[in-house]
Amino acid sequence: MYEGIIQDLIDEFGRLPGIGPKSAQRITFHIVQSQSADVSRLAELLSHVRERVRFCEVCGNVSEQDRCSICRDARRDQTLICVVEEPKDVVAVERTRQFRGLYHVLGGAISPIDGIGPDDLSITQLMRRLSDVEIKEVIIATDPNLEGEATAMYLSRLLKTVDIPVSRLASGLPVGGDLEFADEVTLGRAFEGRLTL
Amino acid sequence: MYEGIIQDLIDEFGRLPGIGPKSAQRITFHIVQSQSADVSRLAELLSHVRERVRFCEVCGNVSEQDRCSICRDARRDQTLICVVEEPKDVVAVERTRQFRGLYHVLGGAISPIDGIGPDDLSITQLMRRLSDVEIKEVIIATDPNLEGEATAMYLSRLLKTVDIPVSRLASGLPVGGDLEFADEVTLGRAFEGRLTL
Repeated sequence: MYEGIIQDLIDEFGRLPGIGPKSAQRITFHIVQSQSADVSRLAELLSHVRERVRFCEVCGNVSEQDRCSICRDARRDQTLICVVEEPKDVVAVERTRQFRGLYHVLGGAISPIDGIGPDDLSITQLMRRLSDVEIKEVIIATDPNLEGEATAMYLSRLLKTVDIPVSRLASGLPVGGDLEFADEVTLGRAFEGRLTL
Repeated sequence: MYEGIIQDLIDEFGRLPGIGPKSAQRITFHIVQSQSADVSRLAELLSHVRERVRFCEVCGNVSEQDRCSICRDARRDQTLICVVEEPKDVVAVERTRQFRGLYHVLGGAISPIDGIGPDDLSITQLMRRLSDVEIKEVIIATDPNLEGEATAMYLSRLLKTVDIPVSRLASGLPVGGDLEFADEVTLGRAFEGRLTL
């Protein structure tokens, strides 16, 4: 529809997740009309991000060094490990400020339909970590969906064979939510996990 | 929240129109995990787009040459000019395949609240074009909102002083829409512009 580089840029933006053709067009025109310095900054960051970002050799979180800032932090409780699927889950847990241990990023969840088995996740690395250091508890914080639950189940069985205490994040009603809008599975979980007052 | 370049890239994406913090994060992680070649292509395009794209010296549309592809096309009707606000409006009109004349891109619309007056738009250039060549009709296709209507009004008065026939795109019910959901202004316009069958 457009000439040359404008269409190329629209196409390239349209390939990013969550950006449709209309947004891609809007962003491209924004860029064409914006300050040259802003555009150069974005171009610069993009050309360096992949060479500068790697994965923490201990936990698999994103990092610009061999070990991520959490693994390098000696004040964190080295005997607690929270297992998550993706680096962005680390940030979500950090935001709660309730967990002061370390993480282990699996790099996904078990999903037979997508051909992802336990061997495709960093489970071997996790088991090696657990044998190196004394661990008091592993908290499984995979997503509360089919794949996440399957992964949690698999991990908890595996961890029980080596006698490490395992827990799983609670399921229940989201805070601020409305009981009548909760789906039956969530409401069922909220009943199962009800607390004695 | 994140370390170094990842947070920088999230911030930079978050500055683009229509991208919130969650999308910016999603896009950044997509890029960190995607093919190096795709990322380089995007970085490359971004660093060249501003130097390669300019505005057509005749109509103000975006172009990689002094004149845009529409102004260069001798088969287009040189006696019709469709006046639009932005380059993306040219593409929208082209998509209808109903107009085979030339365009004039104003670069915005009159908006006293944003401090944009007639002198900030390419109206002088339009008047010069109209004096150079014999024009049969000017079709005003500014947006059907307050600013677009004000601009259309201003232009139609100006063009009448030099005796050039002016028209404005029809307002009415959108095709495929639902009458009961039409706002009262649109429905009022549809009544005013009703066609005798």
